[in-house]
Amino acid sequence: MRRTISCNRSLSATGSKLGSSSPASAATPDSEALVLSTLPADAAAQTEANSHVPGLQARLLSSRRLSLALAAPLSDEDQTVQPMDDASPTKWHLAHTTWFYESFILKPNLPDYREFSADFEYCFNSYYESKGERQPRGRRGLLTRPSAPEVRDYRAHVDAALARLFTQGIVGERPDLASMIELGINHEQQHQELLLTDVLSLFAAQPLRPAYRAPLPKVESRGGGADIEYIGFDGGIRAIGFDGAGFAYDNEGPRHEVLLYPYRLASRCVTNGEWLAFIEAGGYRDPLLWLADGWATVKTQGWNAPLYWEERDGLWHQMTLEGLLPVDECAPVTQVSYYEANAFAAWAGKRLPTEFEWEVASAGYPLAGNDLGTNALRPRPAPAVHDGRLSQMFGDVWEWTSSAYLPYPGYRPAPGAVGEYNGKFMVSQNVLRGGSCATPPGHIRATYRNFFYPYQRWQFTGLRLAEDAA
Amino acid sequence: MRRTISCNRSLSATGSKLGSSSPASAATPDSEALVLSTLPADAAAQTEANSHVPGLQARLLSSRRLSLALAAPLSDEDQTVQPMDDASPTKWHLAHTTWFYESFILKPNLPDYREFSADFEYCFNSYYESKGERQPRGRRGLLTRPSAPEVRDYRAHVDAALARLFTQGIVGERPDLASMIELGINHEQQHQELLLTDVLSLFAAQPLRPAYRAPLPKVESRGGGADIEYIGFDGGIRAIGFDGAGFAYDNEGPRHEVLLYPYRLASRCVTNGEWLAFIEAGGYRDPLLWLADGWATVKTQGWNAPLYWEERDGLWHQMTLEGLLPVDECAPVTQVSYYEANAFAAWAGKRLPTEFEWEVASAGYPLAGNDLGTNALRPRPAPAVHDGRLSQMFGDVWEWTSSAYLPYPGYRPAPGAVGEYNGKFMVSQNVLRGGSCATPPGHIRATYRNFFYPYQRWQFTGLRLAEDAA
Amino acid sequence: MRRTISCNRSLSATGSKLGSSSPASAATPDSEALVLSTLPADAAAQTEANSHVPGLQARLLSSRRLSLALAAPLSDEDQTVQPMDDASPTKWHLAHTTWFYESFILKPNLPDYREFSADFEYCFNSYYESKGERQPRGRRGLLTRPSAPEVRDYRAHVDAALARLFTQGIVGERPDLASMIELGINHEQQHQELLLTDVLSLFAAQPLRPAYRAPLPKVESRGGGADIEYIGFDGGIRAIGFDGAGFAYDNEGPRHEVLLYPYRLASRCVTNGEWLAFIEAGGYRDPLLWLADGWATVKTQGWNAPLYWEERDGLWHQMTLEGLLPVDECAPVTQVSYYEANAFAAWAGKRLPTEFEWEVASAGYPLAGNDLGTNALRPRPAPAVHDGRLSQMFGDVWEWTSSAYLPYPGYRPAPGAVGEYNGKFMVSQNVLRGGSCATPPGHIRATYRNFFYPYQRWQFTGLRLAEDAA
Amino acid sequence: MRRTISCNRSLSATGSKLGSSSPASAATPDSEALVLSTLPADAAAQTEANSHVPGLQARLLSSRRLSLALAAPLSDEDQTVQPMDDASPTKWHLAHTTWFYESFILKPNLPDYREFSADFEYCFNSYYESKGERQPRGRRGLLTRPSAPEVRDYRAHVDAALARLFTQGIVGERPDLASMIELGINHEQQHQELLLTDVLSLFAAQPLRPAYRAPLPKVESRGGGADIEYIGFDGGIRAIGFDGAGFAYDNEGPRHEVLLYPYRLASRCVTNGEWLAFIEAGGYRDPLLWLADGWATVKTQGWNAPLYWEERDGLWHQMTLEGLLPVDECAPVTQVSYYEANAFAAWAGKRLPTEFEWEVASAGYPLAGNDLGTNALRPRPAPAVHDGRLSQMFGDVWEWTSSAYLPYPGYRPAPGAVGEYNGKFMVSQNVLRGGSCATPPGHIRATYRNFFYPYQRWQFTGLRLAEDAA
Repeated sequence: MRRTISCNRSLSATGSKLGSSSPASAATPDSEALVLSTLPADAAAQTEANSHVPGLQARLLSSRRLSLALAAPLSDEDQTVQPMDDASPTKWHLAHTTWFYESFILKPNLPDYREFSADFEYCFNSYYESKGERQPRGRRGLLTRPSAPEVRDYRAHVDAALARLFTQGIVGERPDLASMIELGINHEQQHQELLLTDVLSLFAAQPLRPAYRAPLPKVESRGGGADIEYIGFDGGIRAIGFDGAGFAYDNEGPRHEVLLYPYRLASRCVTNGEWLAFIEAGGYRDPLLWLADGWATVKTQGWNAPLYWEERDGLWHQMTLEGLLPVDECAPVTQVSYYEANAFAAWAGKRLPTEFEWEVASAGYPLAGNDLGTNALRPRPAPAVHDGRLSQMFGDVWEWTSSAYLPYPGYRPAPGAVGEYNGKFMVSQNVLRGGSCATPPGHIRATYRNFFYPYQRWQFTGLRLAEDAA
Repeated sequence: MRRTISCNRSLSATGSKLGSSSPASAATPDSEALVLSTLPADAAAQTEANSHVPGLQARLLSSRRLSLALAAPLSDEDQTVQPMDDASPTKWHLAHTTWFYESFILKPNLPDYREFSADFEYCFNSYYESKGERQPRGRRGLLTRPSAPEVRDYRAHVDAALARLFTQGIVGERPDLASMIELGINHEQQHQELLLTDVLSLFAAQPLRPAYRAPLPKVESRGGGADIEYIGFDGGIRAIGFDGAGFAYDNEGPRHEVLLYPYRLASRCVTNGEWLAFIEAGGYRDPLLWLADGWATVKTQGWNAPLYWEERDGLWHQMTLEGLLPVDECAPVTQVSYYEANAFAAWAGKRLPTEFEWEVASAGYPLAGNDLGTNALRPRPAPAVHDGRLSQMFGDVWEWTSSAYLPYPGYRPAPGAVGEYNGKFMVSQNVLRGGSCATPPGHIRATYRNFFYPYQRWQFTGLRLAEDAA
Repeated sequence: MRRTISCNRSLSATGSKLGSSSPASAATPDSEALVLSTLPADAAAQTEANSHVPGLQARLLSSRRLSLALAAPLSDEDQTVQPMDDASPTKWHLAHTTWFYESFILKPNLPDYREFSADFEYCFNSYYESKGERQPRGRRGLLTRPSAPEVRDYRAHVDAALARLFTQGIVGERPDLASMIELGINHEQQHQELLLTDVLSLFAAQPLRPAYRAPLPKVESRGGGADIEYIGFDGGIRAIGFDGAGFAYDNEGPRHEVLLYPYRLASRCVTNGEWLAFIEAGGYRDPLLWLADGWATVKTQGWNAPLYWEERDGLWHQMTLEGLLPVDECAPVTQVSYYEANAFAAWAGKRLPTEFEWEVASAGYPLAGNDLGTNALRPRPAPAVHDGRLSQMFGDVWEWTSSAYLPYPGYRPAPGAVGEYNGKFMVSQNVLRGGSCATPPGHIRATYRNFFYPYQRWQFTGLRLAEDAA
Repeated sequence: MRRTISCNRSLSATGSKLGSSSPASAATPDSEALVLSTLPADAAAQTEANSHVPGLQARLLSSRRLSLALAAPLSDEDQTVQPMDDASPTKWHLAHTTWFYESFILKPNLPDYREFSADFEYCFNSYYESKGERQPRGRRGLLTRPSAPEVRDYRAHVDAALARLFTQGIVGERPDLASMIELGINHEQQHQELLLTDVLSLFAAQPLRPAYRAPLPKVESRGGGADIEYIGFDGGIRAIGFDGAGFAYDNEGPRHEVLLYPYRLASRCVTNGEWLAFIEAGGYRDPLLWLADGWATVKTQGWNAPLYWEERDGLWHQMTLEGLLPVDECAPVTQVSYYEANAFAAWAGKRLPTEFEWEVASAGYPLAGNDLGTNALRPRPAPAVHDGRLSQMFGDVWEWTSSAYLPYPGYRPAPGAVGEYNGKFMVSQNVLRGGSCATPPGHIRATYRNFFYPYQRWQFTGLRLAEDAA
């Protein structure tokens, strides 16, 4: 196996040790600037603070436009096909996020609202049992009808009605409605990320390996070669969960206290180069590194590298939104499962952080990074120098934590359909933190809890190592 | 269960007997006329005799245009999605039939031919092992790329090259090439039928049950109510298989003799009305009527009616190319499996004919009927009066025979890739005869052997009963 | 791959030709003598003619004892476990054959008969839908209760009742009952063969590869090296099917005529040595030799040799009832599927015979051979010299024919449960002829039609080649 | 649905409330006495303190004898068959626990030890990757060889060798060896519980529903009707995990602190009567009560009651080790999955406790209860009066907690094969606490962490409700 780029390989040199520890603790803001120029102009509005009504409408509009912008490079065919059960068609995302507004907001609250089509609830309900029967998840790709143009009409119809909610002053009088719209925006943002990961899944499944967009001119590496440092954090009782103003999901609360032991967190995410060392050291062939379920998956699925990696002419390539490209050893590894992240950590003699350790460590860092706003569309190398600070906390890749996705003390799902949003998934999944290169700007929070099954790996999921402080 | 139309129900009245026997033997031509007006004008050319070069080119052109005409009512989305492993996307049919010409005819024979794309052989080879690796059958629907417009370009590119084969006089000097083109035309005709059945499968799988075209004005019933008569045929040594001039598949020969016992054949196909009687008599609940494999399928698949039948408001409907319509009791039952056909025959106290009985009985009947040329797009009721003649022998529905699909004595597959056409499927399938409402005009022959697995039922497949002559 | 024995390898030397043709046509009896000394003494009675009452009772007793004798080398554990859906536990065979007598003969006909247990019909009905619900086929191995001793008690109970049928003179007055008993004997004989093949399946699935019995002293090879000759047979109208006195299954009739073309049949079965040549020539890697279904099975199942073959230290071994032994190149190949037999024939430039060709050719040969009566328990090499006669027609291995298992003209299943015996399996299977080394003596007939699915290969199934006569 | 016994039905009367809260906090010992009379006399030795050498040998002997005693009521057939992948044959348990001693203790440490059979490591290794290839878990039931008598010989052989370890003074000099033997005893105790639950699984899968033993004379109900009280516990920092002398599994440590919020725990487990109310209230039909994975399982598996419940003549019965018996409404519900436990808690307006809440609450209660030592072999009703104390904490049923099975802070698996014992299962499973009616006496601890997947329910698994303190 040839290598193209040489960086971050100290790992393989030092055997089983990933970096050294440094006692630094706090953190100063990352200087990372948002690169929004290639996004629709109004995307910047999404970083605005919060839900006073005029801002709300602007952010709603911006969010609605972003979905269409993300779909724009795709043909109607591309928008229709479903590559696997987990990944939905673009068209379905466009319609489902629209149905969410129609079903939860417009129909109950806009007096003269005319339903676009009585069939759409069946077609575009995702998993809300309280909303009745629906198209099975694994068969969303059968829906050539309604067509993509009809779905765009549907969006326009609903957008116009949403505008009336504002112009008629209804939102202004109804804080509950403003909250629901806020939820709708955040809901659509989640689907914007999924839209991209699902398109990547579709394109990776095709023999032609098409690109979502042409590769951008190579951004000069920002160093990327910095060795991992381990930043120390004290133990003790710490507050966890959302308590600020503005929007958060119900699963981020109630805010409560947890007891932490002293720990250290890696200054950056694990890179592709380090992952190559893991592969070459036989990481995918040694059962003792793996959880039993993980090892069974390795064997039955034939895993020998991250999803979307493939060897061509002796060189590892990686399917990206810019097509099949040689693996960049300096960039964070992505599209790895929890099983793989855990095995890597075992091999490195480290562990994954808990979600609480991650959240506490993130205090003081700005909610900024390589998210969808940079338009990089894939994780980028960390800065060349760490200076005792954590980098890549927000954006780049969702970071697997060792925490199972469970309710916080005192958590109760909301009554009704909205209560199906988060609570019913609280079993057998692990929490991920920090957002990714596909997360819309303004969507992430330090308290944000994403969750996937330990075998899933079609998202932009990577890892950051941790260890106990002596 | 309400019924809309009352016809052909003598069956249920008389218990287990389907019609009475009449000793008539021979047959005179059906007066059925082709209704081609709604097909592209050049479709009529397809009924021409055979492969003298000018006729060949005309038929080639006509055949190529028909595929596009059949795809015309469909959006690119409709043309891309695959509803199940057995049913391929329209776009794939359009490209595969084109690849057949490119790979078997143009590349070896047209000196200056430029391959349209090196990727297409992988994408659009169906099952030719001699042509190398290919996109797995069940994953043809993942191909959003090449796009539908590219596939249309591909067709134009290949059509132009095929035209050069004629204009440069190459075909005229090469009878083998003319034969291959003849095979290409017939191959494409098969896919034209599949294109329609596969679109029906796709549309039936969608919650909106879209129609391929708007229902035509109701054709006045041609009677449909005629009771079945049983037409007798003598036993003895009979010649079977193709021996004429012109094109036939290799599996239709060698022509040879078989020994038949005297038998009688039903004057028409079994109707939906008769099938309703079978359902209401508990046909799908009585294991003693079924082959063991059939009964296992009934139970595991939950079969209780033909494919595409569904009850709505107490009335049986049927998904058709014109959408979901009430079942027409006078029309032939279609989309039934061999298992069902066999169980029905057992229930009726009859049996299915052998393919040899069918072929011998068809002698003297014109190759005409309700095929794709009538543009009915579904089986139609038989004439009101039989007059001792067989009706519906060609067109309407493929008729399941009790014959396993096996090689005729002396059959040898051709060497090379073309040899993979028919011979390698000669196990575990049953022969069907006579063509259907989706068979392109000019494609069927009395010796034509279609074949499907006994559990398959997404084709226009029905049945005609038979019995031993005392 | 080393070889131990060198014989019958002319095949690989001559390329794709298996032997040469000789014009001889008829046949004289094989001098093969039954070797019954190691079977229970009364087994010889099974070769008796037929159903006059005293002989019937003796054969019944003999048959009942043989089942127990076959089970005797097995522990109760061995008799209980089911290795796969197709293979039933010994205990189940012992009980099911007993239930057959109880349910079809004793309960309806012996006035004072007391059912052994009301639960047994559920447990030991095989597939008779008319007898109601039953233990699913794939779950027969769950039945640790009733225990093996209880099943033996069940047999004794039913045997005593069957004896009363004779001593009370009931059988003498009821020819229909004698026929049913005859059916019971033949039914049990079928299960005796299955008992052995199913035990072999169980033992082959175990890591210790236990032997059903210790290997017998090596029988001196009877030559085995004779090249294949092709014996010619005339075409014409030939009578097929059973018409003699005595017992036959319903599927062997009605006797009727078929039209055959001249053909030649190989003088003996294909050997392991010839199969090795097929393997070494890449037979399992060349898709063009295979039926499409067969090739799909090769790939999904990873077939690369007959079932039970495994390489140890560079040498092919074969699991047998005497344990894991080196492959005997002179013995007939066995445990091959129809797919494999067909591919081999294609590779050899020959074909499989039809069941009619086989039956006609068998005329004049005695119903004798290497069946269970020889106690060899596996196929043995053919005689060293053929002298223009066919050898191995009866016994050794069931011979795959190219004929689909279909009803003969005029065939009707009997009404009631007994009618479920044969007819309901007449789809998707192929006919095998001639019996095997595990067929009880007296069970086989020239008209006997065995049938299995083309993918099945846990029986003693092999092949004999055929070809068209010029 | 008729009911036989009326108790604990206040639940259904009060709608969604399960009992009332009482502020009591601490607890006094349960007066439950061990009923060991029907167990082997030496079983009492198992309740001894710990691993000083003479006691160790006695407990080892006792443990080894108990396994044989548990197997004694079973035939060799019963001991061989495997009803499903999760449940192993008795014979396999007997052999595997023996192999554990042979492989981890005797072969490395007893100089003259002669391995019983070189094949057994393959046959009886469970999941130790470091020990090499092994018989696949789902195929353990194929092993009719080695036979049950051979396995008993194997046990005797290994027991004799273990005795030599003591008589030769090796254990006395090697504390590490004593620890390994202690692990071996605890390992075998786990398999003793599994042996019983797996036999129950086997017998429940059989149409005859055999009993492992005849039902004991009905024990007079100990009341059973006491309403649930909720016992309160303070929040704060609490120590969790094992720190005592004696044996514990590695997953019970390191001892560490957690922060708890005030909570209340139900005084007893949920009963069958309360579960009936859940069923009758439509609990299995209301998706809003269920985790999404749970609801999917309900639908695909058709769950409508706990495992082993079946309706007969309008009355719910339950398969037990004493055969199929009417459901005892006063006894704790058992054989329910985490999904079901969670849904029940949601329906009752409560929640499950965390494993930390459970462990803290158990402080001060003796390690006594309805375990295997009582020989009841199934959960029994709680005492009639609670008096502010928790009952049924140890024994009866394993209690599902809401805690995912994760490592404690600072946990590291041991190196080598023993390190595969617990750590590699730390994903996707939930913790259960307290032991069951099948747990051998002396095996349970307050810190003991059992774990199963949320869909598994063939163990004696039930639940105790909890709630937040205001």
